[in-house]
Amino acid sequence: MNNRREYRLCGTGGQGLILASIILAEAAAQNGMQVVQTQSYGPEARGGASKSEVIVAPDRIDHPKVIQPHTVLIMSSKAYAKYGADYHPQGTVILDSTFVTDAENKFAVKLPITRHARTELGTEIVANIVALGVINALSEEVPHNLLQEAVLNRAPKGTEVINTKALELGMRLAQTLTR
Amino acid sequence: MNNRREYRLCGTGGQGLILASIILAEAAAQNGMQVVQTQSYGPEARGGASKSEVIVAPDRIDHPKVIQPHTVLIMSSKAYAKYGADYHPQGTVILDSTFVTDAENKFAVKLPITRHARTELGTEIVANIVALGVINALSEEVPHNLLQEAVLNRAPKGTEVINTKALELGMRLAQTLTR
Repeated sequence: MNNRREYRLCGTGGQGLILASIILAEAAAQNGMQVVQTQSYGPEARGGASKSEVIVAPDRIDHPKVIQPHTVLIMSSKAYAKYGADYHPQGTVILDSTFVTDAENKFAVKLPITRHARTELGTEIVANIVALGVINALSEEVPHNLLQEAVLNRAPKGTEVINTKALELGMRLAQTLTR
Repeated sequence: MNNRREYRLCGTGGQGLILASIILAEAAAQNGMQVVQTQSYGPEARGGASKSEVIVAPDRIDHPKVIQPHTVLIMSSKAYAKYGADYHPQGTVILDSTFVTDAENKFAVKLPITRHARTELGTEIVANIVALGVINALSEEVPHNLLQEAVLNRAPKGTEVINTKALELGMRLAQTLTR
C-alpha cells in the first residue's frame, strides 16, 4: 500500500468528472505509474450522481478499489453529503464552493471552481479541467507538461486553447491557497 | 456471481474504446443495473495499448475486477496476442479483422468493423460505436433505445447522425453472422 495514491472525483453527471479522471490516469501512466481508473454506476446514477476514481502506484495495483482517498474533489452538495467525510486522515478535500455551500469541514479547501471558469474563461464547460489543475497542483501527482499533454490529447478539436487556460487557472487558484 | 456479465474492449489508444465502454456502462445503469467500468494503465499504455472493462450485474458488485469476460472485443493484433485466449468458456470473442488478421481462433466472430466504418460511413472515427452495436446485438445487454440514448448523450455536438448510423451499422453487421 506504500506510495499508493487514491483520488475520488464526485459531483453530478455532465460536469466532466469522468473525463478529468481519465486525463489524470493517462498522465500518470505516461509518468511511468501503474494506474486503475474506475466509474461505478448504481441506482444513484439515475439521479445524475457521478463518481470517478483513480488509483496510482509505482507497482502493480492488486486491489483496484479506493480504500481511503487522499484527494477528494466534490462538485455538488449531494456528493458532499455522501462523500464529504470519507477520506484519508492526511487527505485533502477540495470543494467547489460554487455548489457546495453548506460545508462544515474546516479543513476542506474551498474554491468556487465553476464560478472562476465562468467569469475568467467565459464558460463552465471547462470547470472539470480547472479542477484537474487544482488537484494536480495540490497533489503534485504528475509534472505539469505531462498533464497538459494528456489534456490536449483528450480535448475536442478547437478547444485546445481554452483547456490549456483552464488547467493554468486551476494551478493559479491552488497557489492562492494559504493553508 | 450469477447474472454477472463481464465485457473487455481492447485495442490501441485512439480507437475510442474507453468511450465505448463508458457508453455501455451508462446504458446499463439506465437499464437499472449496477455497473463498474474500469481502465487499467501500466507500462504497456506507453505502447498505445488500451484495455477497458465493464462489469454489469443486477445487484451490488463486490469484486470490481473482470474474472473471465463473456464478451471480448479485440481491435488490434497486439491486443489479440495478449487477450485473445482469455475469456469465459461460453463467451464471445469479436475480432476487428481489419487489424486482427492472424487469428487462429475458429470460434471468434470476425468482422472488419473499422473497414465497414470507413467504406459505409466515410470515417474510421466511429468504428468504436459500430463495435458497440455489434457487442450489444450479440450480448443483448441493453434495449436498443437505451444504448442509442447513451451514445447520443456522449456524442460530440454535430456527430449525432453519424453516431446513430454507426450504431445501426454494428447491429446490422451482427445480424449477418451465421454461427
